[in-house]
Formats: sequence, C-alpha cells, structure tokens
Amino acid sequence: MTHPIIDADEIVPLRYLDGDLAQAARRVGTQLAETAVQRDRVGGTAKAERDLIRASGLLGAWVSRELGGAGASFPELLEIVRLWSRVDSSLGHVFGFHHLLLATCQLFGTPDQWRPLHEQTVQQRLFWGNALNPLDPSTTITKLGDDFEVSGTKSFSSGSVDSDRLIISATDSSTKKLVVAAVPTNRPGIDVLGDWDNIGQRQTDSGGVRFERLLVKRSEILASPGPLGSVHAGLRPLFAQLILANVYLGLAEGAWLDARAYTKSKARPWPASGLASAREDPFNLHKYGDFLTASEASRALVDRAAELLGQAFARGDALTPAERGRVAVAVSLGKVTATRASLLVTSSIFEVMGARSTSERLRLDRYFRNARTHTLHDPVDYKLKELGQFALLGELPTPSFYS
Amino acid sequence: MTHPIIDADEIVPLRYLDGDLAQAARRVGTQLAETAVQRDRVGGTAKAERDLIRASGLLGAWVSRELGGAGASFPELLEIVRLWSRVDSSLGHVFGFHHLLLATCQLFGTPDQWRPLHEQTVQQRLFWGNALNPLDPSTTITKLGDDFEVSGTKSFSSGSVDSDRLIISATDSSTKKLVVAAVPTNRPGIDVLGDWDNIGQRQTDSGGVRFERLLVKRSEILASPGPLGSVHAGLRPLFAQLILANVYLGLAEGAWLDARAYTKSKARPWPASGLASAREDPFNLHKYGDFLTASEASRALVDRAAELLGQAFARGDALTPAERGRVAVAVSLGKVTATRASLLVTSSIFEVMGARSTSERLRLDRYFRNARTHTLHDPVDYKLKELGQFALLGELPTPSFYS
Amino acid sequence: MTHPIIDADEIVPLRYLDGDLAQAARRVGTQLAETAVQRDRVGGTAKAERDLIRASGLLGAWVSRELGGAGASFPELLEIVRLWSRVDSSLGHVFGFHHLLLATCQLFGTPDQWRPLHEQTVQQRLFWGNALNPLDPSTTITKLGDDFEVSGTKSFSSGSVDSDRLIISATDSSTKKLVVAAVPTNRPGIDVLGDWDNIGQRQTDSGGVRFERLLVKRSEILASPGPLGSVHAGLRPLFAQLILANVYLGLAEGAWLDARAYTKSKARPWPASGLASAREDPFNLHKYGDFLTASEASRALVDRAAELLGQAFARGDALTPAERGRVAVAVSLGKVTATRASLLVTSSIFEVMGARSTSERLRLDRYFRNARTHTLHDPVDYKLKELGQFALLGELPTPSFYS
Amino acid sequence: MTHPIIDADEIVPLRYLDGDLAQAARRVGTQLAETAVQRDRVGGTAKAERDLIRASGLLGAWVSRELGGAGASFPELLEIVRLWSRVDSSLGHVFGFHHLLLATCQLFGTPDQWRPLHEQTVQQRLFWGNALNPLDPSTTITKLGDDFEVSGTKSFSSGSVDSDRLIISATDSSTKKLVVAAVPTNRPGIDVLGDWDNIGQRQTDSGGVRFERLLVKRSEILASPGPLGSVHAGLRPLFAQLILANVYLGLAEGAWLDARAYTKSKARPWPASGLASAREDPFNLHKYGDFLTASEASRALVDRAAELLGQAFARGDALTPAERGRVAVAVSLGKVTATRASLLVTSSIFEVMGARSTSERLRLDRYFRNARTHTLHDPVDYKLKELGQFALLGELPTPSFYS
Repeated sequence: MTHPIIDADEIVPLRYLDGDLAQAARRVGTQLAETAVQRDRVGGTAKAERDLIRASGLLGAWVSRELGGAGASFPELLEIVRLWSRVDSSLGHVFGFHHLLLATCQLFGTPDQWRPLHEQTVQQRLFWGNALNPLDPSTTITKLGDDFEVSGTKSFSSGSVDSDRLIISATDSSTKKLVVAAVPTNRPGIDVLGDWDNIGQRQTDSGGVRFERLLVKRSEILASPGPLGSVHAGLRPLFAQLILANVYLGLAEGAWLDARAYTKSKARPWPASGLASAREDPFNLHKYGDFLTASEASRALVDRAAELLGQAFARGDALTPAERGRVAVAVSLGKVTATRASLLVTSSIFEVMGARSTSERLRLDRYFRNARTHTLHDPVDYKLKELGQFALLGELPTPSFYS
Repeated sequence: MTHPIIDADEIVPLRYLDGDLAQAARRVGTQLAETAVQRDRVGGTAKAERDLIRASGLLGAWVSRELGGAGASFPELLEIVRLWSRVDSSLGHVFGFHHLLLATCQLFGTPDQWRPLHEQTVQQRLFWGNALNPLDPSTTITKLGDDFEVSGTKSFSSGSVDSDRLIISATDSSTKKLVVAAVPTNRPGIDVLGDWDNIGQRQTDSGGVRFERLLVKRSEILASPGPLGSVHAGLRPLFAQLILANVYLGLAEGAWLDARAYTKSKARPWPASGLASAREDPFNLHKYGDFLTASEASRALVDRAAELLGQAFARGDALTPAERGRVAVAVSLGKVTATRASLLVTSSIFEVMGARSTSERLRLDRYFRNARTHTLHDPVDYKLKELGQFALLGELPTPSFYS
Repeated sequence: MTHPIIDADEIVPLRYLDGDLAQAARRVGTQLAETAVQRDRVGGTAKAERDLIRASGLLGAWVSRELGGAGASFPELLEIVRLWSRVDSSLGHVFGFHHLLLATCQLFGTPDQWRPLHEQTVQQRLFWGNALNPLDPSTTITKLGDDFEVSGTKSFSSGSVDSDRLIISATDSSTKKLVVAAVPTNRPGIDVLGDWDNIGQRQTDSGGVRFERLLVKRSEILASPGPLGSVHAGLRPLFAQLILANVYLGLAEGAWLDARAYTKSKARPWPASGLASAREDPFNLHKYGDFLTASEASRALVDRAAELLGQAFARGDALTPAERGRVAVAVSLGKVTATRASLLVTSSIFEVMGARSTSERLRLDRYFRNARTHTLHDPVDYKLKELGQFALLGELPTPSFYS
Repeated sequence: MTHPIIDADEIVPLRYLDGDLAQAARRVGTQLAETAVQRDRVGGTAKAERDLIRASGLLGAWVSRELGGAGASFPELLEIVRLWSRVDSSLGHVFGFHHLLLATCQLFGTPDQWRPLHEQTVQQRLFWGNALNPLDPSTTITKLGDDFEVSGTKSFSSGSVDSDRLIISATDSSTKKLVVAAVPTNRPGIDVLGDWDNIGQRQTDSGGVRFERLLVKRSEILASPGPLGSVHAGLRPLFAQLILANVYLGLAEGAWLDARAYTKSKARPWPASGLASAREDPFNLHKYGDFLTASEASRALVDRAAELLGQAFARGDALTPAERGRVAVAVSLGKVTATRASLLVTSSIFEVMGARSTSERLRLDRYFRNARTHTLHDPVDYKLKELGQFALLGELPTPSFYS
C-alpha cells in the first residue's frame, strides 16, 4: 500500500533514505497522514502520534550505532524531517528538534555527558523537548551550593508537552551569560504550560514552560565547550536552521503533491479555456512547472547544505571558522529558498484546484498556515542581508543562535 | 470614538462617502469589527450582524431616492463594500451582492417588476440572497400551466441563509436557456441548506439551495430583456466583478491597517538590525511601502471602474457594445490588481509583525483565508488573457457571466 | 496619417490633451518617432529635433496664456512628456525638464524674475537646460562686488547642450548654502562639455558643465523664497519626480505598443503550442494583459498625482506642509509604480516577439536601456521606505530635492 | 595574477575543473575578459580570440583521451562554458556549441564517422560551426547520383564565420525528413553570410549560411541512427539546452561579480540612508543576497543536470526512454532557473551601483543584452508547461530538438 504524498518517488524521489530506515520513515509518514487534517483542526498534543514515533525506534535515528542508534547521516535524518513535513509539519518539526537537542548535548557538553544521554534516548525511547530560547532573557540561573536553581518562564518551547527530557536555557544572574542544561521534564519545579494555540504548526506544543526554583545539577549543565563555546559548537544553530528549511520544503512538496490528485480528478476546466480537462490547462501546467522548479531548486541547496553540515560535524574540533562559515552560507541559501518555495506553493495551490478546494473538510490552507507560522522563526530579510555581506564583501556570517 | 481600521482616513481616506451615508457605514463597520474574529472562528450565519445591517437602513443604500432609498452612486456603494470588507469581508460580500441582486432585477426585468421590488426592499428591509449560478446546469425549470416549476440544487448561493428574497437561475428544460427569477426565500419548495463551511469567507452562507417543485410565477421571471438580454443587461456581471474587486481590496487595506498597530506597539526589533525599534527597520518600512503601493494602485483602478460603471448604467438602452466593452476592461484591470494586492498583503503582513502574531487569539490569517477563498471565484489568469486580447488585438471582452 | 504608437487611443487613450495642443503634441511625437532608432544609435545632441520642438511652439506649453504661453495644466503638460517618451524618452525628458526649469524660476524666484523669463521663453523660443545638482557640492559661488562669481563643474546637466538658458546651482562659499540662478548658456565662463555617452537616454545631453569664474548677477539669483525656501517652493522636486514618472510610464507604454505590431505580423507560433498564430498563444496574451495592467495601474496613480500637483501649485503660499506632504505621497506612488512598470515591460517585450526581435536594426532594447538608465535617478527602495514611513507611522515625506 | 571575475573562487568556487584544464580555462577566460567590452561594441567575428581558443588546445577538451582530447567530463566542459560566459558569453556559447557539434557526430553518426572527425578536430584544431536549425524548413537535400546536393539558406548559424567544419541540416525533398551532415566550411557552394548584428551575443556570428548546390557526400551524412534516431541520439537537444543554461548562468555570475568592485569602490551611499558607505546599505546587501541565491540555486540544478547527462551519455544504446526523460526534466529545471537568474541579475545590478554605472565606457548593459537575446532561443513558458506535465501528470518530455 502506498501513499500518494509519501510515496511520490516517481516525481520527487527520496535521495538518501534507503532500506529499513526508509521503510520505517515511510510507514510512520503514512500513519501521520491519516489523521493530519483532523489533528490540525483540534490542535493540542499529538499524543498517539508521538507514541507511534517512539515505538518506531526513529527517535534514535541519528544516534550512532555504537550507542544503539541507527547511525543516520545528516542528509538521511533531514530527509525524514522533510518527508513527514509533507503531511504533518508539526511532527516533522518536533522530530527534527528532538535530534537537534541530542546534538546540542554533544556540541555543548562533554562525552561523559552526551554519550549516556544518547544511549538512554535509544533504550528508553525518550522524546526531547526544547526550552532553549536565546531571545528570552527572563529566566535566570543562580548557584545553590554545588548545584543551581532556575526560575522564570520560557516561550516557544517546541515539543515540551509529553517530552521526557528538556534542554533549557537561563541567564546566569552573576555573569549574564547564557547557560544550557539537560534535565528530565518531570522534575519538580518544571511546569509545562501546554498553551500553544496558533494559526499554524498547531501540534508542535510550542507554548511556555515555567521554572520555579528548579534544581539543576552541575553535571546537567552543558558547559564544556558550552553554548557556541567552540567553532564546532557553533554548528548547533546551523543544524537548527536546516531543520527549519527541511520543514518548509516538506510543506512545499506536500502541498503540490496533495493538489495533484485534486486537479486530476476534481478540478473542472474553465469554460473560457475551451479545454476538455483542467489537466490540459496551460496556466495550470505552468503553475505546476513553477511548483516543481521552486521545490527542486531549494531541495538541491538544502541537500547540499546537509552534506556539508555532516562533513563539518565530523571534523570535530579541527573545524575552522572559515569552514563553519561556508556551511553557514550553504544553510542560509537553503533556508531562503525553502522559505520562498513554501510560501509560493502553499498559497498558490488553490489556483490549480479551483473554488471548491477551499472546503473546510479538506483544510488545504493548513499548508500555508504552517509555512507562514514557521517561516517567521527568524526574518528571512536578515538572512538575505547576511548572504549579501558574503556575496559583496566576502564576509562569512558571525556565529550566533540564528546564523 | 474612532476605529483604527474603519477611520483610517489619515492614511487611506474615503473618497466618495460623505455625510449620513458615511456615518452610517462607519458605524456599522465598527460594530462588525468588534466581533469579526470570534465570528470567523465559529462560522455560520451572522444573524445579529445581518439584522444590524437591516436596522441601519443601508440595504436601500443604492436604491433610488424616488423609491425610498439613499440613492448612493456606484462608487459610494462600493466604498461601503470595501470599508466593511476591511474588517469583515463576509458581510462586505453579502451586502454587495444584495445590491447586485437588486440591480439584477432592474437589468434583466421590466420596470413593473423591479420598481416594486426595490420599494419593498427599502420598506421591509429585505435582504436578498443569491441562487444564480450559471456554471451549475443541474437545476431545471418547466412550464406548469401559466406558471413554472423549478427543481434541482444550486451551489455557492451566497447570502442564502436568513435571506428574505432570492434570485434564482434554472435551465429551461425545453429551450436549454438560462432563466432567472426573483422569489421569496420562505416559499415552500425552497430548502436553504446552510452547509457552507470553508476556510475563508466563513459567514457568507455560500452553501447550497435545493428546489423541489418550487412554484415560480410568470411575473417573477426576469425575462425582458432577460439574462444578458441586452447590452445594458450585460452590465450585471461587471457589477458582480467589481463587488469582488472591492472585497479583495478591502481585505488588503484591512490587513495592513490592522498590522500597523501591532508593528508599532508589539513587534520587536530584530537583534541583528541593531535598531531600537521595529518601526525603524528598513525592511519593515519597505514592506509597508509595498502594501500602500499595491493597495493604492488597485484602488485607483477600482474607483475608476466604479465611475465608468455608473456612467454606463445611466446610459440605459443607449449603451453601446463598445462602451460596455471599455467598462469591462476597466473592471478587469481593477479585479486583477485587487486580486494581486489582496494576496500579497494578506500573506505578507506577518513579516512586519513577527512570530507572535500567529497566535490563534488574533486569527490574523483570516485576511489571507478570506482573500484566498474569494479570489478563486473565477480564474485571474483568464482575466489577464482577456486583457491581453484587448491590449494586443484591440478585442473587447465578449459579454458572459464572468466578463 | 496616424502613428501606431502615438495614435493608440483605441487602447491607451489620451486623457487630458485635446484640440490644438493634442494635435501639436501628436505631430511632434510622430516626427520624433521617425528617426528615434537611428538617433539612439549615434547618441549626441538631437539638434534637428530640438529645433523642431522649438518651432512647434510647445516650449511655452505650460506658460500661462497671460505671458504668451498655451496655459497647459500639469496633467496636460505631463501627458505630452509621456506621449513623446513612448517613442523618444530622451526628448520627452529634456522637454519635461525645460518646464521644470521654468517652474523653478517661478517657485524659487520673485514675479519680477520669472515673469519676464517666461515671456522671453515663449517669444524667443528659448530651450532651458539643467545645471542644478544638489548632490554635487564642488561648484562654489562667491561674492564679487555687487554680483557673484561661480566656479566648478556640474555633472548630470540634462539638456545643457544647445540650450539657451541654464538653471545652475552652487554652494555659497561662506554660508555653505545652495544658491540657484538662471543664466544665458552662451555667457563667457560657461563650458558645456557635451560629454554624455551612456547606455540609455542617449540624447539627453546629461553630461557636464564647467564654470570658470562665471559672472552671475544678483538679479539672476533665485533667492526669494530661494531653493525649497517655502512650502510652495518645495513643490519643485515633486514636479521633477513626476516628470521622471511620466518618462518611465511613456517607456512602458511605448515598448508594448511597439511590440504589438511585431507580435501580430511577424511573431511565429511556437511549434509545441499547436496553435496557428502567435496572437492566440495563451502565454503571449497573458503577458500583454500584464503589460496593460502594469501600465494602467501606474497611469492612474501618475495622473492623480499630476492633478494634485496642479491644485497644490495653484494654492501658492497658502499651501500647507500637510497638503504638500499628501502630494509628495501621491507622486511617490506614481514614481514607484512607473519604475516597476517600465522595467517589467521593457525587459519582457522580447518574450512576446521571439528571437528575431533582437536584431540591431530594430534596437528594441533601447526601451530597456532608457528605462534602466533613467530609473537610477534616485533609488526606488528609498522611495518605498518613505512610503512605508507614511503607511506605518503617518509621517509625511520631509521636503528635499528628492522627495 | 588573478582576475576578479574569473578567479572568484572565494565566493563562487569552481566545482569540477582542476589541474591543467582549470588553468587553461582560467587563462583563456582572463584573456577574453580583457577585450570583451570593446568587442561587444564592434560586434562581428572575434577572430583573434577564436584563434586564441584554437591555440589553447581546448577545442579538444571533451574529446576522449584515446582520440587525443583532454577527456573532460560534461560537468567539466560546461564549467568552462560558464566560466567564459561570465566575461564573454558569445565565445562561451560558440565554444559550447563547438562541442555540441562534435557530440552530434557521435550521437547521430557511426563510429566510422565521428571517431576520425574527433581526432582531426584535436590534431588540426578545427572549430565547428552550426548550420542545423530544425525550425527552418527551407533548405532541401536531393539525391545526386551516389551523393547529394543541398540548396537553401539557414538562419541562426552560430559560429559559422571562421569555422572549419559545419554541421548542416536540410529537408529531404522526397521523404520530408530532416537530414544532418558534417561538411568542411570552405567547400564550394557554402556562403557564410556573416550578417549577424543583434543587440546581444554580438560575437556569436549567428547569421545566415547560404547553400547553393552544395555537394554532400553520402559518407558525410549522419544517418545511423540519424537525428533523434535513437534514445541515445535524443540526448543531443539536452546537451544543447544545458549549454544555453550554462551561458545564462555565467552571465548572472559575471554580472554581479563585476558589480561588486564598483559597489565597493565607486558607489556612493544614498544621502537619505544616513550611512557612511554604499557597502553597508541594507537594500544593496539584500540585493546581493538575492543575486547569490538566484545564482546558486540555479547552479545546483544545472550541475546536477550535467552529471546526469554524463551518466546517460555513457549508457549508450542501453539508455531507456525513461532514463532520458529524467535527464530532460533535470535539464529543464536548470534551464528555467538559469533563465530567470540571468534576467533578474543582469537587469538589477545597476541598482547596487547607481546612476553613474550606466556609462557607455563600461557597457554594463551587455550582460542584460546578452541574457535577453540568448534566453529567447526557445520560450521558457513552454519549458515550464512541460515541467508541469511531469509534475502533475508524471509525463516525461517527448524528445524533440527543444526538449
């Protein structure tokens, strides 16, 4: 049994996934597709689907084989994110960010910290949530004996509800520096608010998390090299940006792959066209040509960025600032094109389907609502400006949590 | 008390409305604005707001003074449609179409038919609904003694629920010609389904109407000159298209006028901009400049078309095909630009507000959902093709229900 | 005898010109068209055509009847600029700027200064050239007894070669303020370099003018109210910007009106279209529809701005800053849309004609080269930013030589 | 000594060329750059530069090592085309088409035909010209004893002047089928008209060739498999399209790499920006970001297509229609994006440089004139329609001389 959007290899083939991993990813993707419309309607936490992902074993997809994972490469992992985002960009996003948080442990912490965390993630099928938000300075961390105490509230904590572990950030009240730690979600002092209710990405649980005198152990703080504490640690935001890009691109692909069936079976030729079928309409075909072109142009850049990110990650502490900078440029190119492709395609698909495609039963606007919501993560104009600084002046992006 | 979107004359002044009519239009517009977000959430029939419009007396806005109406010109009437559509494009649409249906009586019928209908509309505050759909051939009309009987189902019957009168269309079972009639909505044999549930224009009640052996009297049939039965009658679709254009343009204006307050009070400057406020951001300002430019360019064309339509309407049977053709070109120019402006602005406003503007509480995506839904009424590409036939070959549009 | 581009009223009718003025404008336009291709090839000064304009009497078109002119309104004058720019945007530009310089005398000087200058312009058929460039601070003016002496070099002095009078600007060496004066071009100390050789607007003679100890009499200095010396004087840059907008728009109109004949008579249908003629091609027609839409949307704004400018000019010293500001916004809307329309149309016309239309014999690229060159006068992005400041913050443009 | 456009690896690195081939390509590219502006001015045949290419040995770049060539891969060869097109798209084009004609011998003819032709090309440094034009049916071939006779005139014969060999096409007067042959240019009966004089691609010598009873030997006719005579032979138009795409892309890259120096050293900040330098201007940087994004997105697709073409070529007669079809889709994606990138960048670079960049001395409009002329080779809208047929219906392009 194949799914028209998940198994569209004839038109948009998978490029990296293969074998068991591909099969598992397709199976979960198909299951997500079945209920995606209804779940977009109700919003909230996709508990059943999150458990389905847990059960699939894919939470360990990118964890090394040595630690029990599937050892997926960056391109493979991101292709799963993209594939799922075609039908469910909320779960595509939290699945991608789960891996970002695993990578955060590895990039900001020591092997003694991240290796057991990776191992436990596979064994116990732990789902990680995000409470790291560098633009939100209101949460503070204070020394309390040998350990620490965190208080404050985080916004945009994607994947926080129903998570098993959280990556949190706080501002050191004495040094004003950002501190990042990995903690169990069920620890007393953590209140996951579950208050996300937005026009798009409705099941990412990107609401608030309140910390009230939360105990954080010294060993849970990822301090060596710490947040952006080395060139290699500076790959973290690039991985984050590339997950976003793959979610956007998945939305673009999903939107027009979904529209295809409608155009072919239900759309009616416009009387003034004099044509027998909407599938012959030159303007419709021109638009499908545009959808393919926008998607494939972005895909080529996004995939290249994933390969470069994988190579840079493997370089470890040998990675130079210039090498990281080149990856940053590649990631930004992917992100800018995916932003544009997703907005173009998701807002235009209705034109190749016609007025009846606006039925609430289909909720085909969810592609646009998801793309529109997620592409606001950080402003694309500043990514373009940064790319311009490279193109004009040869300046590589300065590492930050957004570039 | 002024409303930031309805009373934005400092930025986008009203150009035609004045005096009592302006005051009444603003008052209703402000009242519609108060509940628009919540009503977009629930959909269905805006019974209270429809009654508010009834009570305002504005259902007779365009009816001649002689027959008890306010005698508004086409530009004045359409400015009300646009003004309301800034905050509530569903009611802007049904209010506009109410007047289209009054005009339909006048354009397709005889003075003996339309004069009393106009008069009753004012006196009894009748709200007209639309069950005329030339693309839907399944409804038939058959002779039954001196009168007629209609059976079948109409789709896209905007404003049908809670209407007092309906304009209906049916195919004559013997001649295969389109027949149009004006009937009371509460007549036995009419079943207004109230089944409209779409992603946008959620309170237009554009669902189905089923006719089961509905009696239609000979005197109710608008047969002289009949549908598109004269050059003058051919103004009907132009009025319809211009109502659409004003709804689109109202959506564009409303969207960015609504975004203003947010950008000024809540949007945060992007850290990489180095600016103290989002209101100084060059990319934000550039986008607001684009919003204004797109809106004003379209407004200039839409207003010119309204003036020409008014002149053409006043010409009565002296109107020549060439004169009508020039109005059709003007209307199409307005429609194409309004389509583009509404899609551009309503999909982009989020970029000048930032990620938090996607909150479900604000439902700011309704501008896009409304614009997207309504701009599919008929394909803009075929309008452009038609304009091209004029620009290249000097050919004026052939009268039809869409041009 | 009619000309397909000048007499295209069937498609793009003149809206203001009428009677003798229209006839004279059409006649000169047709004559300019005859040699425009060849003159674009050789560049330099269009001496014969400038004399033809002199002979037409149109150098006094906008001068009041009282002073011997034709008393054309701003919309009428600008319609001549636009009409000529369809076929020859160089002469359209210098003709427009000739009137700008007459208006400069009136706006910056006293009635005792400008009235005789206007009168002489009509009687002696004087052609005015521009050597006012506020961005070029290198020319200085120094007191010399009762009079003054000017030295330095001006760039971008459009219409300087073969001119009879010049408006010049210089920086007062003591006060550092801008001083503007009207002088005869043939006065010793003025060296018109005639060194303009650019990719577009090749016959505007926009090269340099060198002043070497040029004597300027006190009575020639336009000091009361002086440059931008009053609200009314601040209309000067708005007139300048609106001339530019009309040149751009003329280029857009001329380009596609010129392409029409080619598409209809010479363009071949693309084999894969399966059509008998290029004039039926849906993509060609769609593009012509776009050309018309872009032109007409801009024309509506440009014309409205001309009407507002005329009203503001007539207000004299009663003009308020807010009134001027509203005209500035209207002018900017016209300029932005004309910039975009001209670049879109002039770069795209080839697509509706095909590969053979690139022949050097036709030089159809001159429309683009002219539009590209002239639209760089001042950056359109800053016009959009300024419009954004109005749209977002309600701020009217600060008067300057560019806004 | 490095050249800022040819040796821009810091920003746009070469991806395939290496070693001697890279060095030779860069050396010739730098030499072409030196005189490109002046040669664009005069047009005609670039005799000295063609001889320079002959002398470089690069006419055998893609010929197999076995036959004396450099054995360059498709991606390597096309990277030379692109590199040269950055500075001289005329010679980039004829150099690419020279190799297309060598490939034509191989794809349409027998090993006994093409192997000696390839060998002689290397040994004698033969430059091939094109007189194959499938849209031009007026040239006929007739049997004449054992051999044939060709009469008629071909248009758009790129590289015909100063060529050593020609590929010609003619219609068989009895079968009406297209016949293709390889002949020496200096054979009696061939009159190379040298009449190309167009607005762009001015040194491609794409004028006419007249045949007057030209003797063509049976052995010179490429009849087995003949034109598009097998799936493998159907790769010929894909190679042609990919050469075009690389020329377009080279123009885009060259244009903005050329603009960089100007923006950095000569462009002035706009006064209203309040900035000290044009290189900090946010709108300038945004545009450079756009230039890079458009170029790199296209480059990724164009390079992928070149790799796929190489693989398909190597498959020989084992190549399946479906495999060829997938290459055709990849090539079209490259072509569409390169078309758009080249038009966008070459028409916009002036905006990041300012008004003075329009000087005739610089002739920076040549990038646009070249892109505009060459992108009309076949209509991009029909490429998009074809891509739409794949995206919507899964239909692979039908082999023709354009797809």
